[in-house]
This record gives sequence, C-alpha cells and structure tokens, in this order.
Amino acid sequence: MVKLIALYRHPENRESFDEHYQNVHTPLVEKMPGLKKLEVTRIVGAPMGGEAKFYLEAAMYFEDRKALDDAMNSPEGRASAKDLMGFAGPLVTMMIGEVTREE
Amino acid sequence: MVKLIALYRHPENRESFDEHYQNVHTPLVEKMPGLKKLEVTRIVGAPMGGEAKFYLEAAMYFEDRKALDDAMNSPEGRASAKDLMGFAGPLVTMMIGEVTREE
Repeated sequence: MVKLIALYRHPENRESFDEHYQNVHTPLVEKMPGLKKLEVTRIVGAPMGGEAKFYLEAAMYFEDRKALDDAMNSPEGRASAKDLMGFAGPLVTMMIGEVTREE
Repeated sequence: MVKLIALYRHPENRESFDEHYQNVHTPLVEKMPGLKKLEVTRIVGAPMGGEAKFYLEAAMYFEDRKALDDAMNSPEGRASAKDLMGFAGPLVTMMIGEVTREE
C-alpha cells in the first residue's frame, strides 16, 4: 500500500480553513480515482505538552505507486492539487510513502 | 480512535537507524499496553519530486486519549520513550491526533 501524506501547519484562520477543507477540498480528494482510504487526523497536542507543529494530517491510501501516480495525473487529481495550492499552499507539506508494516 | 505519530527526519546513518528501529525500537513499541495498530511508512519522495523532509512515519493507534495516556505512562511506554530519545531524539517529532475521518 502506498500513502500520499498531506501535513498542514496551523492556519491563521482555523474556521475558514476547516470550512474549506471539509466542504470543498475533501469532496475533491474523494473523487480521485483509485483512492482506497482517506484518513484525516486532527492534531491535538504533543506527548510532552504544548502545541504540536502541525494542525492536520490527511493520508490518502492507494494500492501501489502506479495507482497513486495515475490518480495525481488524472483530472480529479489535478483539480484537488489546484484547490490545495489555492487554500493551503504555504501551509502544506506533501510526502509519498510506502506502508511497510501494518499490524 | 487516537493516534500517536512519530515523524523521523533523515538519519545520518540509515543502516544503523533501520537496524535499531526494526530490531530494538519496534519490539518495545509493540509491548505498549492498549496498542491497537502500528503502521510504519517509509517516505519515498514528494509529489513534485525531490527528497521529502522526513524519512519515516510511525502511527500508533489507541482506542481513546485515556488509553494512549495510560500506554505512555506504563513501564513499557516509558521504556519505548527512553529508547526513542537515545537513538533518535534529535530526529523525531511526536504528535497526538484524533482520527476524525476514515473511509
């Protein structure tokens, strides 16, 4: 399984970020062909206390690297990327990962 | 579901990091009481190309925040944290998150 990870730093305006993320961005992500699972995690803190560096993590799971590449190159993937850059370009760190252990 | 996320930056020596991570650290993590799932992801790149900022992500899933706090405060949790600080203290960013969407 391959994972596309989006890590968002804290937005200036949480309310408008959340509103756009949930009502506009997530529906676009969900249209990506081959998406097996979308897991969204709201970061609530750090083990030693204090505010964590990140605000939100989204993990998009695909069968393999080809499926992920195809999804990113599809019209739906491009629409999702364009929306992402518009509402959270300076906030987001994107990574591609291979799940090596799940138990 | 609540998630403890460990994000590791690139180690200087990948071989010794991997060896310790797999053979020493992971067995300690797996002993944490209440651990529902451990998902380890090796970061292989970024969507726009180039090397991602992080090397590895480990996500430890617990039923709720109390279960996670109990696990971290247990002897097994403390042993895992001590080992983590010893082999990867300057590399790791820890976060606690609530899974808000999984589909």
